[in-house]
Formats: sequence, structure tokens, C-alpha cells
Amino acid sequence: MNTDDYNFIQKSTLSTGKEMYSLMKSLFPICRSITGNGVRETLKIIQKYIPLTIHEIPTGTKAFDWTIPKEWNIDDGYILDSNQNKIIDFKKSNLHVLNYSIPIDKKITFSKLKEHIHTLPEQPDAIPYLTSYYNEEWGFCMSHNDFLKLSDEEYHVVIKSTLEDGSLTYGEYYVKGKIQDEFVLTCYVCHPSLCNDNLSGTVLITFIAKLLSKIKPYYSYRFLFIPETIGAIAWLSKNESNIKKIKHGLVATCVGDPGDVTYKRSRHGNAEIDKAAEYVLKHIEKHSIIDFFPSGSDERQFSSPGFNLPFGSLMRTIYGVFPEYHTSLDDLNFVKEEFLADSFSKYIEIIFVIENNRKYLNTNPKCEPQLGKRGLYRMIGGQKQDGSDEMALFWILNLSDGDNSLLDISNKSGLKFDLIKTLSDKLLSVNLLEEKTND
Amino acid sequence: MNTDDYNFIQKSTLSTGKEMYSLMKSLFPICRSITGNGVRETLKIIQKYIPLTIHEIPTGTKAFDWTIPKEWNIDDGYILDSNQNKIIDFKKSNLHVLNYSIPIDKKITFSKLKEHIHTLPEQPDAIPYLTSYYNEEWGFCMSHNDFLKLSDEEYHVVIKSTLEDGSLTYGEYYVKGKIQDEFVLTCYVCHPSLCNDNLSGTVLITFIAKLLSKIKPYYSYRFLFIPETIGAIAWLSKNESNIKKIKHGLVATCVGDPGDVTYKRSRHGNAEIDKAAEYVLKHIEKHSIIDFFPSGSDERQFSSPGFNLPFGSLMRTIYGVFPEYHTSLDDLNFVKEEFLADSFSKYIEIIFVIENNRKYLNTNPKCEPQLGKRGLYRMIGGQKQDGSDEMALFWILNLSDGDNSLLDISNKSGLKFDLIKTLSDKLLSVNLLEEKTND
Amino acid sequence: MNTDDYNFIQKSTLSTGKEMYSLMKSLFPICRSITGNGVRETLKIIQKYIPLTIHEIPTGTKAFDWTIPKEWNIDDGYILDSNQNKIIDFKKSNLHVLNYSIPIDKKITFSKLKEHIHTLPEQPDAIPYLTSYYNEEWGFCMSHNDFLKLSDEEYHVVIKSTLEDGSLTYGEYYVKGKIQDEFVLTCYVCHPSLCNDNLSGTVLITFIAKLLSKIKPYYSYRFLFIPETIGAIAWLSKNESNIKKIKHGLVATCVGDPGDVTYKRSRHGNAEIDKAAEYVLKHIEKHSIIDFFPSGSDERQFSSPGFNLPFGSLMRTIYGVFPEYHTSLDDLNFVKEEFLADSFSKYIEIIFVIENNRKYLNTNPKCEPQLGKRGLYRMIGGQKQDGSDEMALFWILNLSDGDNSLLDISNKSGLKFDLIKTLSDKLLSVNLLEEKTND
Repeated sequence: MNTDDYNFIQKSTLSTGKEMYSLMKSLFPICRSITGNGVRETLKIIQKYIPLTIHEIPTGTKAFDWTIPKEWNIDDGYILDSNQNKIIDFKKSNLHVLNYSIPIDKKITFSKLKEHIHTLPEQPDAIPYLTSYYNEEWGFCMSHNDFLKLSDEEYHVVIKSTLEDGSLTYGEYYVKGKIQDEFVLTCYVCHPSLCNDNLSGTVLITFIAKLLSKIKPYYSYRFLFIPETIGAIAWLSKNESNIKKIKHGLVATCVGDPGDVTYKRSRHGNAEIDKAAEYVLKHIEKHSIIDFFPSGSDERQFSSPGFNLPFGSLMRTIYGVFPEYHTSLDDLNFVKEEFLADSFSKYIEIIFVIENNRKYLNTNPKCEPQLGKRGLYRMIGGQKQDGSDEMALFWILNLSDGDNSLLDISNKSGLKFDLIKTLSDKLLSVNLLEEKTND
Repeated sequence: MNTDDYNFIQKSTLSTGKEMYSLMKSLFPICRSITGNGVRETLKIIQKYIPLTIHEIPTGTKAFDWTIPKEWNIDDGYILDSNQNKIIDFKKSNLHVLNYSIPIDKKITFSKLKEHIHTLPEQPDAIPYLTSYYNEEWGFCMSHNDFLKLSDEEYHVVIKSTLEDGSLTYGEYYVKGKIQDEFVLTCYVCHPSLCNDNLSGTVLITFIAKLLSKIKPYYSYRFLFIPETIGAIAWLSKNESNIKKIKHGLVATCVGDPGDVTYKRSRHGNAEIDKAAEYVLKHIEKHSIIDFFPSGSDERQFSSPGFNLPFGSLMRTIYGVFPEYHTSLDDLNFVKEEFLADSFSKYIEIIFVIENNRKYLNTNPKCEPQLGKRGLYRMIGGQKQDGSDEMALFWILNLSDGDNSLLDISNKSGLKFDLIKTLSDKLLSVNLLEEKTND
Repeated sequence: MNTDDYNFIQKSTLSTGKEMYSLMKSLFPICRSITGNGVRETLKIIQKYIPLTIHEIPTGTKAFDWTIPKEWNIDDGYILDSNQNKIIDFKKSNLHVLNYSIPIDKKITFSKLKEHIHTLPEQPDAIPYLTSYYNEEWGFCMSHNDFLKLSDEEYHVVIKSTLEDGSLTYGEYYVKGKIQDEFVLTCYVCHPSLCNDNLSGTVLITFIAKLLSKIKPYYSYRFLFIPETIGAIAWLSKNESNIKKIKHGLVATCVGDPGDVTYKRSRHGNAEIDKAAEYVLKHIEKHSIIDFFPSGSDERQFSSPGFNLPFGSLMRTIYGVFPEYHTSLDDLNFVKEEFLADSFSKYIEIIFVIENNRKYLNTNPKCEPQLGKRGLYRMIGGQKQDGSDEMALFWILNLSDGDNSLLDISNKSGLKFDLIKTLSDKLLSVNLLEEKTND
């Protein structure tokens, strides 16, 4: 990604924000889970934007310590009271049915039913989002206020779901760059009607992929649209032999809420992706940078000790912290175009830094080269120096010893990365720098 | 030391405090020095608690740069005034005679006598404790107030001491553990009637030894009851070939006063003993941690550059700082049962951490293992995580890469060491961890 | 430099300050540039103090990326108004002519002339100092107030300069020490009548050289009196094969102004010269320590990545920051004897530390040696320790393991370097220390 591409993309983030929001709206109603038609439908819509490859891994396939589970699909789910009124209706909110619930159709006393109903007493208007992937169970989720209205002695519960051999579905898109080293951006597509977590990450990754496919980037990029946890594990299991190509990774989640930007460092703590993200964030007044911890999203799998890949995660408010998290309040009102646009802009800036963060060698390392004869130095000397351009040239020449990347030079000099990059290009063009090979 | 042993020991620290104080009371009257019967008598009393081996090293034996000195014993010492009144009496306080004083019996003018009398003008009621081990000298110590009352022109000075070929005596007790690597705990038994410095350390070590002898600890433990400096040098000289077994060491001194707990780091500064002690201290509101300095007690010898052993020292108020230090005020009133008990508890906690601070390897390092199928994970997913148990499992699995000990994992996760240890045991029991060998 | 030499030198810094000032006064009127007779005349005056070798490098000689330029000399320069009055006169201030100006003699309209006149509107009484070394140009510098008085339509400009094949001149002085490793002190002699920048550094280096020539120092010292930038490049180019002998370097500049002392670290950041300078500065209440940056003076060349020599720079107010910098206000009133003397004293202290900062080995590394039998320990033990001498002995013995220099020991112990040095000498004299060889 060169500076022109970068500036072009950054100029249109607001309209990209609108497009992301529009895609999110079309994905919102679908009932997704870690397997099943919801994911397939989601990926098909994304294929209108980028030519995703869709993979299917059969039920029963081994993936390290795990096994691909049965495929879950659902048509309907409701509870009828004694007057045949639907007091809960899956068609109104797919959060109402415990995700991965087994089918059921029977009358049941209220006292038995209560054991299968989940509410949030502290957020009495919100429907919670709950799952039971690896434990055959049925259940309903509802607002606590609605729950308190239940007074019949018997109810009729119906869940029209299937749990059968099938497959786990995920989408993958690869953009070939100048080098084979990869930058992986990943999101998860297993949550039902929840916006910030994680349709926001899904649409963000879609639009980054769309833009990078139009330029010839330096790194090769791989975009993953996977069910959380089992999808990451399955992908890693299928792609183990190619994993050493992965040099940088970001997990996109919770990127559409009004909170400040948060960067969760990779397990390394000081990997290049961490330095790039921290460089971008330090120019934002309000932001948080937190150390890696081994829970959260799929960085848990990519950063497991057997892989230890440098995956960071750039979010706004971190999962679990905003009150809307995993409830029906995480909806199309909670996420806004402008926050999606802002997050997108930060992702693009990180990518720009990573794309251009090379290590060069000063070809004239003994004393300074004579910049004046190359037109790179002021003609009359002696005045107080105010030119950060000249200082940038000196910093680049002095630190281009094979140890320092352009980002290191930016950090040590206090000069902006894009200035360092632009002036490195000038020095390259007059052969005062050369690419460092075989790093 | 397993968790049950640990909890059992910690529950009875108050009664252990009483027993320690009682032992201290019986040791208090004895006149000890770096050699002589005072040490022998002291060690014989300690043998009632633990089966100490008593070693004798003959006068004249070489120990590195040093030579075992003549043995000193004393029966009596006093100064008679012109009316034959004892103005100083060794039988009332053994501090009155300069420790290692040569014998004397003669009349002497007051002006000559003054050169041999030591007082503390700034603490006029206290008798100072002074020694003259390697310089043949005689002298008396007395309170400055009593000194000011002296008005005779001539006095009769009597010291009935002997300085003859004999031996240096020390006690040693070894508790065999599961491995040969050693944890050495040491105290010094050369000070006469002084409580905090260092009967307190002596009784503390005695009771730790007594308790560890009842369990089968992981490390082997060696307890040393030695005269300070020359005893440590003599012991190191005799045991040079086995010193590489020593992995951790603590010097116990000044552990009975009312001050806050102080940890003096080992010369390494960040050895495992340092990490363990700092872990224990950081949970105490008021405490001090100070860097190693090459004076103080026997850590000076164990940490000399030729050995460089990781010996820390856990104290309360550090030697030289409390005004009672090396005076008759450091008595049975200054040291209290409760402070001995509290110091004992801290030592036991450090030992517990060291005993259990292993490095394990995650046997399933690629992605997370599926904890649910092993009953280690909640069944319904999606709710906000509040379980530090689950987080502890994730931290242990993620960091058990051979580089991190359980204490490192505790420090990085912010979770308590005993939680990390308990859950590591669970993971071991389901074979998700294995011992790291050949570290 | 032993302690006696050091103390002797430090006692006479005030009179040295007077002598430095006096030399500066005699050098002030000379018009210097990067080549030409001004430098030769300057070096000849310095030869009255130290036996400088004067080198001439012919015009056209290659020096890395650079070429020695034509030699510039000047006899006169002025502007005549229509009444034949000299409104600018080189003989009154050699700053009036743009340094390295080509010759000119012609009448010119005021509007054309203005393009060749340089002033400082924000310092309207000061004549700026400007150069045009590598761009054939002519010009004048004058105070902005005088410039505003110009009202004629035509002026007659005269610069009687020559720009011809010749040579670049520099001075070098070598003081052989006990070892071949070198400490290089450098200043630049290319600025015309400017005192702080950098006659101050020139006279400082002269007097340090004079003093070191009278003793037999440990390091060999090399003193360079060179034109800035091209002189350093030329010197490095001629001496490339011997550069690995250089262990420490200091660039002396701006050492005579009233500001606080500033140390600019070497590119290494923590080289021995940095530690020594920081040790000296930390005992001064007001001072600044700043990181290396690749502009400033000749540390730019010595620290270019192909050489990466540990060159620091000890200044008072850093170049470019004081308003007098590169103007006629940087004159004999701005620099004072007392500030020259104070800077000299700091340089000498740094040299003293570097000269004596050895690494020793404790010859008795197992336990402490018995200091008492060597007369190095108090005779009566037990009193509270107040002797920093004893503590210094313990620190030296404990840390003389081959890793720590005396300065490291001073820093770790908090004890003064000269105390550590004095007591190391005592330990050497009783063979408790030995020189570490083959470091």
C-alpha cells in the first residue's frame, strides 16, 4: 500500500462507514451459530463484495483436541401459554432460543420450565444471548420483565431445530501481495443478531479485503470469516503447514460502538503488529492499550503456545465490558456508521505502517553522505535548523544499520512514520539506501 | 509441602509463636560467642526439638583466608570498687564483659580503666554489646549512667576467661526431600543475651526445621546454626564440593521485633527466592524490599563472588536500624510471640511457593484443549466471565511453554499463586500438563 | 591520571580559565573557514601551547562520499553607498561576508543587492553567521537595523576573496599513554569570530591536551582541531585503519556560556563515556542529559553507522538554543572565564573517571577475606557501622567478579567513585585484587 493508495482510502472512510453499516443491516436478521445455514447465508451475502472461498468441514473431523460437532439448524421456537399465546417467539428475536438447543415439543409445568429459561435480572429489559454448543440441552432466553409476567401452571414449549451430521462452514479470502509473508485478518460469523459482537468486525474485514484486493499490497493478506473458537481451531488444523508464513495478525471484533479505541497486544507484547498499533494509537487522545490475556476471541487459538503467532486485536470497547454485550441491546442502534468508519480508518493506518515498515541499509555508512550534491540539503548553511525533513534524512541514514525498521526510526526520532517513509523513498531513489535482504 | 500441609502449619502459627518464645527464654541467659561452651549449651537445648548434628572444627584449621581462632570460655567478670562492691557483674548481664576478652585480674587506676570501658552516651541506660574476636584485648561494657557514677581512684578488674586451643562448634540439620536440590536456611548462634539479634532467627529456624521434618518436602532442606561470619566461612569451606546443590537460601535474623517485614534481596536480585519473597510481601500492606548490599549477616559469605548463591534475608526491622540493636535493650520484652509467629508464617509461605513453583509443559500446545469434555468448563456459554478458575486454566495452558514457572504465571495473570497451583494440579491430573524435565 | 594529578589539576582550574580566555581572545579576530589561512593562523597560535602536527589535504582529495573543496581565502569585503561610505566592512566583523563567498566587484541596484543580504529580523542588532561552502554564491550579512537604513538605488559591492586549489588544514596532537587504546577529544576550528561556538571548545581542548602531555596517562589521547563535518570526514577517511583503537570520544563545543552543563549521549546510549559523564553530572544540581540525535557537531560523523564510535558531547547550552548562536552576539562578552573553567573541570573529572575505571578480580572470591589481619578493619566489633570505607571495601570485593567496573561499583553502592578507586588501590596493594586481563 503506497502513500497515494493510503490517502485515497482514508479520504473515503465516511462513505465506507455507510456501506459497512448497510451490509451489517442485511446480515443482522440471520440466525447464525457455529455451524449451519446461518453462516452459509452470511457468507453468500459477503460474496457480493469479495470473492470468498467457502469451506465445509464435515461433522466428526478431528481438529487437534476437538471434533467438528453436529450441524445445527433451526426453523422456529416458541412457548405457548394456556391461551395458546406465544409468550416467546424465535421469529421476533433469534436470541430467544438457546443457541444450539436440541429440538423439543412438549407441555411442561412452569416450575420445570423455569430451569430452562435464562434472564438477566440486572438488565430486566434485555434478552440474553446464550449457547450450549457441546452439551445437549434446550432452553429459552427472555427479558426478566417478561419472565416475571408468567403465571400459568403449564406451558407448551416448541423448538424446531435439528442437530445432525453436516459440516462446519467458513469463508476465506486471499489477496496475493509482492511477498508470500502473510498478514491475517480474522473475524467470527457465529453470533446471531448481535451487531457490535461481531457483525461490526465482519463488515470491517469485508471492506478491508475489498480495498486491498484493488491494490497490489506488499504482504499477502488472508481474511478469515470463521465461527469463533472451533472455526479458528479447525482452520489452524487444516493449514498447519503454512502457518510459518504468517507474520502479523489482527482479530477484528467490537469495532462499532461509541467507546474509545482499545488495542490488546499480542502474546509477544512487542511484535511488529504491536508497535504498529501502538504507533497509530499514540496519536489518538483517548485510547487504551492492554496486555495479552489468554481469553477473549480467536487470538487465544492463534497465540496458543504451539503457534504463538503475533495476533493483536483492535477494538473499541472490549467485549464483556459494555452492558449491551451478549444481549438484545447490542443491536443496530448501538453500532453507528461513524464508529465503524473510525475503526476502519485505524485498521487501514496500521496496515499502511506494516506495509511500509522496512529495514534498509545505508549504502554509505561511513560518515554522512553529501546530501547537498544530491539536492537534499539547504544551500546556505548556518541558520538555526527547523527542517524536520533534514532531520528525518539524518535519522534514517544514521539508524539504517540493519537493526532499525522505519517504525523504529520514527519512534526514536519522534518524527512521523509517513515522513520517515517518504524521505526513505527519496534516499532509495538516490541509492543512499538499499533493501536489507535475508533478515 | 502440599496445600494441606501448608494450611495445617499456617493455622497453628500462634501456638508456634508461643513455643518459639518459650525456647528463646530458655536460650536467653546463656553467654554465647563465636566459640565455646555457650554455643554447645545452646545447640544441646535445640536438640530437644530437632536432631541436630553438632560439628567441632579445631582451632587452627584453615578456612579460605581465615583460621579457626582459639576457643573462648568465661566463668565470671566484675569490677570491684575500693569498698569491694561489684560495680559491674557478668553474672547479672553477660554483655558487661567485652566478648572474647582475655583474662585479667589486677588493680588499675580509673584513668587507665576508662580506656577499657565502653558505653553508649546517647542511650545512657543501655549496656552495649561489643566484641574483640581477632584482637587480644580486655574490656567491660556498661550503661553510661552507671559509668558516670564511678568516682574511685582505683578499681580491681577481674575477668575469669580462657582463650585456648579448642574448637568452633556449629549445628546442622538436613531434611531429605524428593530431590537433592537444596534450600538452605541459616541463623547465627554466637550472640549472648540478645533476643531479636539473633535468638529470634535461631528459634524460627528451629521450628521450621521441626515442621519440615514431619513432611516429605520437595526440596531437601539444610538448617545451619552457626557462629556468624567465621561459622559461615568454616561451613562453606568444609562443604565446597556440595555447594552447587544449593538452589535457594534465606538468612533468618531480627524476626521478632514489632517492625514491618523487610526483605533483602539476594545478590542476583531476581532469583527465584527473590520472586517468591516479593510475591509473599506484596500481599502485606506495609513492607520493605531492599537490594542486596555486601554487609549485614551471612549472606555476605554465601553471596561472595566465588559462590554467588541466591541467599535473601527476611527480617522485620533490619539490623543496625532499631535502637535496641546490640544493646541490653534487645531483650525478652522487645521480642514478642506475635511477631515471631508472623515472621514464621511468612517464612512458611515463601517455602510453600518455592516448593510448588514448577515449570510445566502444555501437552496440547496447539490451540486450547477442549476443557468442557473434561468437566473443566461451564456448560452454558455466553454469559460474562467471572470465573477466575477458568481464567487460571487459560493462563496456565497458555504460558506453560517451558519458560514460565507457576509463580511467573501468577505474576503475569495477577491471580494468586495457590489458585494457579491448585488448577495446575487439576490439569496435571487430566494430562494436559506434564513436568518439564532437564531444565 | 592518578588522584594526585587529578587534584592538582582541579585546584588550578580558575587560573586555567583565565589562560583559556586569554587564548580565545587572541584567536577571536581571525577569519576562519573550513579551509584557508584562517585555520593555519589559528593552529600556529595553538602550537605555542602544544606541539600540534599540522596536516594539509589537497583540494580534490576524495573522502568517502565527499571531495576536499577549493581553498577559500579573503582579504576584504565591503559595500559602498553612493557617497563611497562603507556601509558594511569585513575588517570590522568577518561575519559580514557570507563565509566561502566567491569574489565580486561591481555596482548593483538595491533590489538585486537585497537578494544577497542576510539579516535576522527577530534579532535586529545581530549580524548572522552564514556559509555557502558547496554552492558558489556571494553575499553579505548585516544587522537588520542597519539594513533598514539602506536607501540608495545603487551600491558597489566588493569581496576580495579567492577560491582556488589548495588544501584543507587540520591539527592533531597525540599523547601516548600506558595503553594503545585511545580517548579522542575533538573540536572544530572553522568558525570565524564566534566565541562559544566554538573557540570555547578549541581552547578547552588545547588546555586539556597541555595538561595530559605532562603526565603519563593510562589511555593514549588524540586531540583533533578540525574543520567541522568535512574535517571529521577527512580525518576518518585518512585514519580508517586505526579507528578500532578508539574507545571513548568527546566533542567539545559551546563550553563557555553561562548555561547549565548538558551532556549529549553517544549513539550507544550507555557506553563507558556515557556512564562516566552521567556520573559526573549527577553530582551537579542543575544539568541536562539528552539522547543522541544525528545532527549537531562531529559526533554525527564519528557515530555514523559504519563507525559507530562512542562519542558523547559535553556542552553548556546546546548549539542552536542560545539566542547568540551563529550571530555576532556570540562574542568575548558572552563567554566568561569562570564558565570555561567550570567546563574544563567537568572534562577533567570525566577523564579521571575513564582513566581509572578498571575492572578487577577479587583474588579471594570465596567468602570475604579477613580484612582485620591486613589492618583494613576496625578492631572492636559490634557497634553500628558508619564507616563508608569499610562498606566500600565490601562492595569492591563483592562486585569485582570481572563484570563490574569501578564505576559500576560506585553506581551500585551509591559511594563516590574516588572513594572506590582509592580503596581499590588499597586492596590491590595487599593483593586482594588483581587486574582483569583480556577483557
